[in-house]
Amino acid sequence: MTLNAVLDRIDAQMPDATERLLDLLRIQSISTDPAYKADCDKAADWLVEDLKSIGVDASKRPTTGHPMVVGHAKGTGKHVLFYGHYDVQPVDPLDLWDTPPFEPSLEETDKGTVIRGRGASDDKGQLMTFVEACRAWVAVHGELPIKVSFFFEGEEESGSPSLVPYMKENAKELTTDIALICDTGLFSSAVPAITTQLRGMVTEEFTIKGAARDLHSGMYGGLAGNPIHVLSKIVADLHDETGAVTLDGFYDDVPELDDQTRSMWQNLAFDHADFLGEVGLSMPAGEQDRTPLEMIWSRPTCEVNGIWGGYIGDGFKTVLPADAHAKISFRLVGQQDPDKIHAAFKAHVESRLPDDFTVEFKPSRGAAASQMSTEDPAFEAAIGALSDEWPRNGSYIGCGGSIPIAGYFKDILGMDAMLIGFGKDDDQIHSPNEKYDMESFHKGTRSWARILHALSK
Amino acid sequence: MTLNAVLDRIDAQMPDATERLLDLLRIQSISTDPAYKADCDKAADWLVEDLKSIGVDASKRPTTGHPMVVGHAKGTGKHVLFYGHYDVQPVDPLDLWDTPPFEPSLEETDKGTVIRGRGASDDKGQLMTFVEACRAWVAVHGELPIKVSFFFEGEEESGSPSLVPYMKENAKELTTDIALICDTGLFSSAVPAITTQLRGMVTEEFTIKGAARDLHSGMYGGLAGNPIHVLSKIVADLHDETGAVTLDGFYDDVPELDDQTRSMWQNLAFDHADFLGEVGLSMPAGEQDRTPLEMIWSRPTCEVNGIWGGYIGDGFKTVLPADAHAKISFRLVGQQDPDKIHAAFKAHVESRLPDDFTVEFKPSRGAAASQMSTEDPAFEAAIGALSDEWPRNGSYIGCGGSIPIAGYFKDILGMDAMLIGFGKDDDQIHSPNEKYDMESFHKGTRSWARILHALSK
Repeated sequence: MTLNAVLDRIDAQMPDATERLLDLLRIQSISTDPAYKADCDKAADWLVEDLKSIGVDASKRPTTGHPMVVGHAKGTGKHVLFYGHYDVQPVDPLDLWDTPPFEPSLEETDKGTVIRGRGASDDKGQLMTFVEACRAWVAVHGELPIKVSFFFEGEEESGSPSLVPYMKENAKELTTDIALICDTGLFSSAVPAITTQLRGMVTEEFTIKGAARDLHSGMYGGLAGNPIHVLSKIVADLHDETGAVTLDGFYDDVPELDDQTRSMWQNLAFDHADFLGEVGLSMPAGEQDRTPLEMIWSRPTCEVNGIWGGYIGDGFKTVLPADAHAKISFRLVGQQDPDKIHAAFKAHVESRLPDDFTVEFKPSRGAAASQMSTEDPAFEAAIGALSDEWPRNGSYIGCGGSIPIAGYFKDILGMDAMLIGFGKDDDQIHSPNEKYDMESFHKGTRSWARILHALSK
Repeated sequence: MTLNAVLDRIDAQMPDATERLLDLLRIQSISTDPAYKADCDKAADWLVEDLKSIGVDASKRPTTGHPMVVGHAKGTGKHVLFYGHYDVQPVDPLDLWDTPPFEPSLEETDKGTVIRGRGASDDKGQLMTFVEACRAWVAVHGELPIKVSFFFEGEEESGSPSLVPYMKENAKELTTDIALICDTGLFSSAVPAITTQLRGMVTEEFTIKGAARDLHSGMYGGLAGNPIHVLSKIVADLHDETGAVTLDGFYDDVPELDDQTRSMWQNLAFDHADFLGEVGLSMPAGEQDRTPLEMIWSRPTCEVNGIWGGYIGDGFKTVLPADAHAKISFRLVGQQDPDKIHAAFKAHVESRLPDDFTVEFKPSRGAAASQMSTEDPAFEAAIGALSDEWPRNGSYIGCGGSIPIAGYFKDILGMDAMLIGFGKDDDQIHSPNEKYDMESFHKGTRSWARILHALSK
């Protein structure tokens, strides 16, 4: 089956494809807010109908939360499962939106046409690139070049409470040769990417406790210990003067980059001055002997995400507080074990408690890093297909954040996943004025058409 | 003029004296709340009338805030100015009071009778000990044994905005041989005290700024600097491992105790285990080579009174905040200069700012420590008088907090002040269920009668 006719069909159907996306964007499927339960259901129904219209045997599957949409297309050859999510983030603060979040529109900008609205990029626009590619294949050839199944959830933005149980209960139906996940981004406008490593995370929240009540520093200051001082010392000691994390054994299970990845990343010529400059910074502040891309993709980190204690209102109160608090997160890589990191952190804190001080930990949460093996020839094929569509060659990249679904496919279904997406850094996902570039939507759709073709060979 | 008849008179008039105090306590003279302006005025009127009833030429003096009450009694010999304040703290949280704050009552407790109500100890009860002593002297002898002037303000609990201007404008009228201030406490139920040193204070509030906006730690973590880390290092570095403050030149103007004071303090046999034990602590946490009393009275301190930055709500947000904040106060002693301490602190912070970080300081506020010379024989006489009244000998003590009025008397009027009071640590001033022990009221009144007598010799 030829590819060019499919690409032409995509170009021709872009106006209709855009209308369909705008239709989906009008549905207020905010999963975290119970007030939008019916809207989430409506988005699932919309997808079922749309999949049916291209010959997919699709249906809505109930969960204790919002429904899943599962569908199977006819086809032969390699079997892929495409994952996306139809729910979106809340829209607050509403007054920062220039247009109503659920009245999507096309907007001409200096950088080209954008599709503006909540979910345009995360994840409805990305999800529809794949659906539109399939539609074009079916329109031109009557069928898809490989066997495709669809798996859409409606709780990604609210912690995916139903996802793991559903995957476990329906493992057989959902297991295919490889998963495709469209919830990531391009490396740059010119460079498409497959994300092959995602950092894991351990979160810690704890309280340092001193005196039984707040004390007046005029009466006790100098004699009674201050939990803010103890907390500050604990935090300050988390990094040494080279920027390395000091926890015992922290780097034990952290691998060095393999040569292929290192070489690909070097070719990306990441401009850290530009990346940092956009947020008013200039100097890489992490481990001094690491490159900027390593710092954000392949090195573990420790960040204090919140700290508080004592009087924090207007004016002054010379209080010696009874307690002080912090929220700390570790980004994990390689084989770092969340439980081991938690234990090392606990030991770090407890060894720094002076007499009379105690610590209370809230339950720690953790997830290991995900590292995709790129040995499956599908990776090489997909990189080739992406390279054909975009100005520059595709690259394997890392991601500093976590995308739990990739780990679930591996752990529950034993499947590798290819994370391919066309979002850009300035898409403002989770923020007011979210947008998706028309270029991302159009070339993203063409990219999937090429990938489906490449996987059929 | 004999003292014994005066003391007998005080004992006999205690029921009436108590009724008068309860009367004054019923007036809701909360100075910080404009809603109680008329009540403050009423308290001033009440005092003017009461002073007149004992032959004092007293009047209300308007200010831009609440009025002063100034009065002069006839008399010869040493001339003293007695200071007190008729305003009280707000009563919130009202639901923690066991009885209405402005319906004062006598209450029998395990430790004896207490007078319960807002202002019972701070400062209406303390103020009235002196007035009642004068009343008894006048009743018995027709006059006071020395020359006495009275100076009551109504803004002590709201920052005394009118005090310094009023003192400057009326310096001649207010200047006497020595001031008496009744706004401090006993060292213990058995040991009366004259407070001869008060710590000063410098307050600092500042913000460490990093990126132009909050960043997502998944995207930037490891590469972008974190202002909470910078702040924690600044705070952790304020003390060395011996508990000493590390600012350059911090201890330059800190005197050692003189031998008399050291010896008096040793005789107090301060039970730091008991003092700390009451608030759930056990170990002195200050400079390791100093005694507990030095730590709270005669050594300078540095305390973080508040710290905040990043996400401090429920749950977790993996934010890399744009800024982090702290409020820090230094308690000063001896000749420590607030401006020098502020400059040293600023240098401490600025020298610890990594590339890309800036700091913003709010205006610093400072007041030097007060150290009374005890060379005036009035001190020796007053200690003797206190020793005659209480189970154990009187002592010179320090105070870890600040009482600005003592500094004003020195700086504006060139007068030394004797800070003598009968409050106890458990009086709960500024808190719900404030009380004043009947013993403090009764023996406090007798103490002043003795001091007036001793100063006449």
